[in-house]
Amino acid sequence: MQLLEERILKDGQILGDNILKVDSFLTHQVDYKLMKAIGKVFAEAYKEAGITKVVTIEASGIAPAAYAAEALDVPMIFAKKHKNITMTEGILTAEVYSFTKQVTSTVSIAGKFLDKDDKVLIVDDFLANGQAAKGLIEIIEQAGAAVEGVGIVIEKSFQDGRQLIEDMGVKVTSLARIAKFEDGKLVFAQADA
Amino acid sequence: MQLLEERILKDGQILGDNILKVDSFLTHQVDYKLMKAIGKVFAEAYKEAGITKVVTIEASGIAPAAYAAEALDVPMIFAKKHKNITMTEGILTAEVYSFTKQVTSTVSIAGKFLDKDDKVLIVDDFLANGQAAKGLIEIIEQAGAAVEGVGIVIEKSFQDGRQLIEDMGVKVTSLARIAKFEDGKLVFAQADA
Repeated sequence: MQLLEERILKDGQILGDNILKVDSFLTHQVDYKLMKAIGKVFAEAYKEAGITKVVTIEASGIAPAAYAAEALDVPMIFAKKHKNITMTEGILTAEVYSFTKQVTSTVSIAGKFLDKDDKVLIVDDFLANGQAAKGLIEIIEQAGAAVEGVGIVIEKSFQDGRQLIEDMGVKVTSLARIAKFEDGKLVFAQADA
Repeated sequence: MQLLEERILKDGQILGDNILKVDSFLTHQVDYKLMKAIGKVFAEAYKEAGITKVVTIEASGIAPAAYAAEALDVPMIFAKKHKNITMTEGILTAEVYSFTKQVTSTVSIAGKFLDKDDKVLIVDDFLANGQAAKGLIEIIEQAGAAVEGVGIVIEKSFQDGRQLIEDMGVKVTSLARIAKFEDGKLVFAQADA
């Protein structure tokens, strides 16, 4: 997605060896126009898939997922990273290991929002090690629903998340793919959409 | 907001004495059509205020805040509840006490996204004790920016959050106001918009 790659080059900050900070338009401050455009590209990529739900994980995935849901005209569900006193019945969970934080957390979705007829598009802001997406796939499959694809705003292609998800038999659609960081600059790989 | 009150009566669940669960359209599964309508009502209520930023707090505030930002054509910022390795410079923080969880957490916004010329609309899903909104007001005022109002999707009017915010000199605009729970049913107070 050219608009996104241009925005990353313009406003993204490279910290250290392999951290890209995009907090001015995606992960902290959010540019709704870009999110809307991103939602439309995801919807276009999955327009033949009969998507019935968009699933993401709190918090940075919510804005792009909401606009993808709008473009597909379906509900969006955001998985919870923390337990909640009002989540009591039929909770589906998966353990997600964070390599950056070196902790395992429990991600959950109320089972009543997914059923075996659902065709789900997962949307998330970043794909690096793929642990969050893997956890979401596990939860959706526990519900007997089908995962039609994983839509990613920014993929770190030098990490193994994409391979992990594809090895689970799930298609990955990344709008920007970072091949590597070289001399403090980003090198993109060919994006999927 | 009549559409919202009708939706709360139709799909909200009352748990125990005073918990309203709206996870089918706001706090877990999200109805983008309703969020879009909510965003427009907030924008209409603040159309004369010269709003330059919408600020919310992760996670359930993000969807209504994004659509309010869209309707006002301004950026949205979501405050973080947890520290993040890529948030390094000029962080503004406030301590927020949760009565339900009985813990104090640190809420933060990168100072670079707020300046003294900003006129901010805070948007959040619930107003109960008002601690989250109070923390956001403190952060925005640290930046020297003006808080023009707090837009709330569902206010629990039997708790003291509204009074707390109004005592800080900030206007509250709640789209649905729950006066009380009576015999397992909701009684609404007059909403602000």
